[in-house]
Amino acid sequence: MRSARPLLLCLVLFAVVNDVALGTKDSELKRCKHQCEALQKISEHQRAECYEKCEKYHSGKQQKQQKEEEDTYSLFPYRGREEEEVQETENNPYVFEDEHFITGIKTQHGRIRVLPKFTERSKLLKGIENYRFVFLEANPQTFVVPNHWDADAVLFVAQGRGTLNLVRKGKRNSFNIRPGDVVRVHAGTTAYLINRDNNENLLIAKLLRPVSAPGQFEHFFGPGGRENPESFYSAFSSEILEAALNTRRDRLQRLLGQQREGVIIRASEEQIRVMSQHEEGGIWPFGGESKGLVNIYRQRPSQSNQYGQFYEVDGSHYKQLEDLDISLSFGNITQGGMLGPIYSSRATKIAVVVDGEGYFEMACPHLASESGRRQGSESGRETRIGSSYQKVHSRLRRGMVLVIPAGHPFVTVASNNQNLQVACFNLNARDNEIVPLAGRNNVMSLLEREAMELGFGLPAREVEQIFRSQQEEFFFQGPGGRQSGRADA
Amino acid sequence: MRSARPLLLCLVLFAVVNDVALGTKDSELKRCKHQCEALQKISEHQRAECYEKCEKYHSGKQQKQQKEEEDTYSLFPYRGREEEEVQETENNPYVFEDEHFITGIKTQHGRIRVLPKFTERSKLLKGIENYRFVFLEANPQTFVVPNHWDADAVLFVAQGRGTLNLVRKGKRNSFNIRPGDVVRVHAGTTAYLINRDNNENLLIAKLLRPVSAPGQFEHFFGPGGRENPESFYSAFSSEILEAALNTRRDRLQRLLGQQREGVIIRASEEQIRVMSQHEEGGIWPFGGESKGLVNIYRQRPSQSNQYGQFYEVDGSHYKQLEDLDISLSFGNITQGGMLGPIYSSRATKIAVVVDGEGYFEMACPHLASESGRRQGSESGRETRIGSSYQKVHSRLRRGMVLVIPAGHPFVTVASNNQNLQVACFNLNARDNEIVPLAGRNNVMSLLEREAMELGFGLPAREVEQIFRSQQEEFFFQGPGGRQSGRADA
Amino acid sequence: MRSARPLLLCLVLFAVVNDVALGTKDSELKRCKHQCEALQKISEHQRAECYEKCEKYHSGKQQKQQKEEEDTYSLFPYRGREEEEVQETENNPYVFEDEHFITGIKTQHGRIRVLPKFTERSKLLKGIENYRFVFLEANPQTFVVPNHWDADAVLFVAQGRGTLNLVRKGKRNSFNIRPGDVVRVHAGTTAYLINRDNNENLLIAKLLRPVSAPGQFEHFFGPGGRENPESFYSAFSSEILEAALNTRRDRLQRLLGQQREGVIIRASEEQIRVMSQHEEGGIWPFGGESKGLVNIYRQRPSQSNQYGQFYEVDGSHYKQLEDLDISLSFGNITQGGMLGPIYSSRATKIAVVVDGEGYFEMACPHLASESGRRQGSESGRETRIGSSYQKVHSRLRRGMVLVIPAGHPFVTVASNNQNLQVACFNLNARDNEIVPLAGRNNVMSLLEREAMELGFGLPAREVEQIFRSQQEEFFFQGPGGRQSGRADA
Repeated sequence: MRSARPLLLCLVLFAVVNDVALGTKDSELKRCKHQCEALQKISEHQRAECYEKCEKYHSGKQQKQQKEEEDTYSLFPYRGREEEEVQETENNPYVFEDEHFITGIKTQHGRIRVLPKFTERSKLLKGIENYRFVFLEANPQTFVVPNHWDADAVLFVAQGRGTLNLVRKGKRNSFNIRPGDVVRVHAGTTAYLINRDNNENLLIAKLLRPVSAPGQFEHFFGPGGRENPESFYSAFSSEILEAALNTRRDRLQRLLGQQREGVIIRASEEQIRVMSQHEEGGIWPFGGESKGLVNIYRQRPSQSNQYGQFYEVDGSHYKQLEDLDISLSFGNITQGGMLGPIYSSRATKIAVVVDGEGYFEMACPHLASESGRRQGSESGRETRIGSSYQKVHSRLRRGMVLVIPAGHPFVTVASNNQNLQVACFNLNARDNEIVPLAGRNNVMSLLEREAMELGFGLPAREVEQIFRSQQEEFFFQGPGGRQSGRADA
Repeated sequence: MRSARPLLLCLVLFAVVNDVALGTKDSELKRCKHQCEALQKISEHQRAECYEKCEKYHSGKQQKQQKEEEDTYSLFPYRGREEEEVQETENNPYVFEDEHFITGIKTQHGRIRVLPKFTERSKLLKGIENYRFVFLEANPQTFVVPNHWDADAVLFVAQGRGTLNLVRKGKRNSFNIRPGDVVRVHAGTTAYLINRDNNENLLIAKLLRPVSAPGQFEHFFGPGGRENPESFYSAFSSEILEAALNTRRDRLQRLLGQQREGVIIRASEEQIRVMSQHEEGGIWPFGGESKGLVNIYRQRPSQSNQYGQFYEVDGSHYKQLEDLDISLSFGNITQGGMLGPIYSSRATKIAVVVDGEGYFEMACPHLASESGRRQGSESGRETRIGSSYQKVHSRLRRGMVLVIPAGHPFVTVASNNQNLQVACFNLNARDNEIVPLAGRNNVMSLLEREAMELGFGLPAREVEQIFRSQQEEFFFQGPGGRQSGRADA
Repeated sequence: MRSARPLLLCLVLFAVVNDVALGTKDSELKRCKHQCEALQKISEHQRAECYEKCEKYHSGKQQKQQKEEEDTYSLFPYRGREEEEVQETENNPYVFEDEHFITGIKTQHGRIRVLPKFTERSKLLKGIENYRFVFLEANPQTFVVPNHWDADAVLFVAQGRGTLNLVRKGKRNSFNIRPGDVVRVHAGTTAYLINRDNNENLLIAKLLRPVSAPGQFEHFFGPGGRENPESFYSAFSSEILEAALNTRRDRLQRLLGQQREGVIIRASEEQIRVMSQHEEGGIWPFGGESKGLVNIYRQRPSQSNQYGQFYEVDGSHYKQLEDLDISLSFGNITQGGMLGPIYSSRATKIAVVVDGEGYFEMACPHLASESGRRQGSESGRETRIGSSYQKVHSRLRRGMVLVIPAGHPFVTVASNNQNLQVACFNLNARDNEIVPLAGRNNVMSLLEREAMELGFGLPAREVEQIFRSQQEEFFFQGPGGRQSGRADA
């Protein structure tokens, strides 16, 4: 039923629409529309489209919710339907689907989709408001026009084969890139890209840390024209440009008057061929592992069994990540397998579903405390003191993005018919520890017997038995592959 | 009248109620109530209690104020009654008493009291909004249930004898703790605690620096049940738990269905005995000074005379404080003695009165500028240009917490019948200098004679005489021990 | 027409009033007045003056705008009048003139002018909200009273000859300072200053980074009296001072009752003479280059040709700048010359025009996106996708301050009759690269031929010809010195 293909996947993942939770529907709709406006450089037309999306998304949500409620099943007696409903109507700010992106740049040959500032989604994400997330998608045999950003960036190649050019400190470096590659791009570097494949789209996930205004960044295009893209040269007076470039005005007008096909454009086969072949800089993978990038799939997995593999890249593998305090991880959960429950001791994860399907659960005290008041007043119970947690639940699909804050226990489950692959950008990565809550060496099994007894109110022997039954580590057989009640140790 | 007992105390301290200043009474009352609501996970009942406290506190304040006004005496002719009143009706956001705490967790066996985010008190505290302060108090022979936080923490043991267990990176370390111990706990560490004393409460002051959302942190309980505390395990679907722990559902239900006695619970003598004795990890103080903690009382005092002693612990004594850029200091002011005036060049202090009574004065330009407008328009004087300072004055009592910003001159005075002991968390501690404003090597005595002359508008000889009369350093005989006008040099 | 005088200047510069852009006039007027109130410690009288300035400034602006519009000429056909007007009525938050400063402290002998928090000007400046900018101007033969700040500071001596005294860690250091000197002053250092010149004002530009509350700082005066300046000693109870200083009350009253002439006061020739001569500390420039300061004019220029020279000082020249992550640069553009276009890869520049006149242009995507909506809806064009840039244009005059964010291409042009000199504080300086957009090694000339072709939509040969015509580097002959169309390569 499940084969342990040596594929890849990670930690974290994505929300079924009915968990995205409505809050008051009106306020979320309002927020959604607000995001349309917040997008910089959006045209009227795009805004209209964006608004429409909001409307559609929200009406769709109500319908789906109806359906999902019927699908919901709860085996745990004290996690009943009633509580689930509370959860479904509260907001889940940790999950991002297509609807949450805004198309920053779009041509017939590809698109660049940008997540709004995380704090526009929820105040709970204030800790990562200084980061931005972008998906770049380029069709086969296309060219992304040279530009620089006022942000440091880490790129993860999710799909396709391309060539990346980086111009920095008076030198140009070229890299042939392929899935699993991780590249750090310094703020202000002029970068351009080709998709050199004939068939497959090139898909790159990009984490940005703006250097200028927190959480805000811009693309600066040198090449371009008067518009689409506009060249920043065209913002200068013509007498300035004439003097600086020592060139006649008519030539400048010609230079800046041609290109208007957009940021991602079609390249000829010959152009692709030439740009894929040059040897300048370290063309990877020829000539040994270049320092310019690293491939996460080529690392030795830090966790591996029949249910999955886990790979990591940090400053010790790729020095350029060090000053950013960012690491990357990649998990491949075999079909029918699961990862966790675990938590990160200090890193917040921004996770991208690279391939496959499945679902995700996380225990969140913040959402619980927000909804707690209401629950309390409804039920009339006033005795609860201490922490409580709300389950964040989400289906996972390709292209979804998920935020998992430090300290929050979570679990990821692959569907029964496909491996689930997830790449994670880990922010605040230095000294981070992944803490296991089940399986070998789980943290509960390390407590003293007296602490078990007092903590759970049960004889230590019983507690030990439960927390030492699972022999695997990190990746386990998922719930779908088990007959309920069968596999007790 | 005063003996130089080798006791201990520190820098900073606390506000008599009539100095907490009313602002407009209504607005402070409103703010107080707002804090009630801001507390996360508070029940309706707790909120009601909290409201009541606000009301009581504010009506009490008005009465006390009446009384204090009668006690007020002002010897300095141009610091008259009128000005004091202005001060009393302005807000003093630097002092925290019982009323400002909110009981996050409370059982019959102890309580965990949390200060709201500092910025909820005043915008002036924005510089420390990323830190939180907590008092933990556990009754004799009790157990604090294992949990982790999404925050780095520094613990200071103010009173009692306990055992602290820290589970991190697959290892458990146990420490017998006693007054003066300083322990850094990394974010995500699972910690539990016993008070192993038969009579004395265990009192721990805790400074937290959240890693996830700025200024916001949560406790995550693994052990627990459905509530009080809720285990985060119970947030997961039962089929997930069955699969992850490889255990039958009925066992899980039993595991998560027992404990409901709260976060701090009573332990048996036998349980205490066993948990106090283990040798795993470095049980301090046996086997040499453990790297896991340091005791501030065992350091050589950096300042010491008959009026007091001053102790410090920073990254050079205890490496684990280094990356946090936090140091601790402890001052013991002998009864009738005083500390300062001094200021910190760059650290902001969060000070806790550990024992004794006394008072505190600080010069604050921020409050002065806020009240300045009103004074100006009332008095009709318009000639004042340049800085001015308001005196922040506060009685000091055990358990009070005080914030002293960098650069602000302050002084702390012990009562005539008891030593005053204060522990300080110093934020932004690297390269901090404590600058003396009186006594040997005070900064004024280091000025050139011409600068003295021009700065004070007096012959240099007179200025020198004043600033060089005090032979002691750092700690001095306090004002209560002097006959006015007697002790001139 | 232009002589390459060995003078000095830098990068960045300043806004003609009509570019300061009105937003809605009312809202800017309101903001201006708000800044009057935001100034701390302002008297009623000063506030009235400040209000008046606002009114005058704004009415003047409208008139000037009229005039400037007539002067505007646009040679670039697709940068027409219409678009310029849009620009002129949008806000330009990057340029600061006299009107934007508020006189924090003013006496007949000098003044200290403070820029409000940058974020009070615009949200676009959020990245530098933690920094403050101050001009200190002291008349000949004056003394600035000793004080300390709760901020780290970097001083740049723009004009005059003074002596600076710094008291820190129990030692006093004296420095004779002169134009081009850069001094870092640690937070909490007691500093005082004399202008020892008989004729020239001493002018110091000061960048502050508050250590306590972000973006907020205060001066603390030890010497002083009851007011103007008030001594912080006078905020303490007299019994406290008597005890701490071991001094009689009548002496204290005399000490704190004399000085009331303000923060900047006249010194006698004899006092000046004595304070200029002492040898304590490293009196620069005698006895070798002191570690206490560095002179930027004495560095080897990193760029130099007949059109200008460029000097830099960072942590490698002056260790004390390292922990602040700040560098300084200074550009001297020869009359008729120009600097750039260039951009900084990660540093944001706060630039001060030290001498001369000229103008400045910058391409700004943020302003473009703010005005984009309106343009879009007016013109009915909806096809624009991708980035666009607005030209920020500003005349430059002595004393103006300019903010240039990372990534933004800009150019600076000197007038035809005077060198233009600009000093820059570079924030976020570590690893910053200055990227040339014209002249030798400009980034466009480093692209592959295919990338040129695709990016500009022109044959590579044409693109190469344009970007390789200019043989100079960094500094070029400005537009005023060229006959239009003459100098093509």
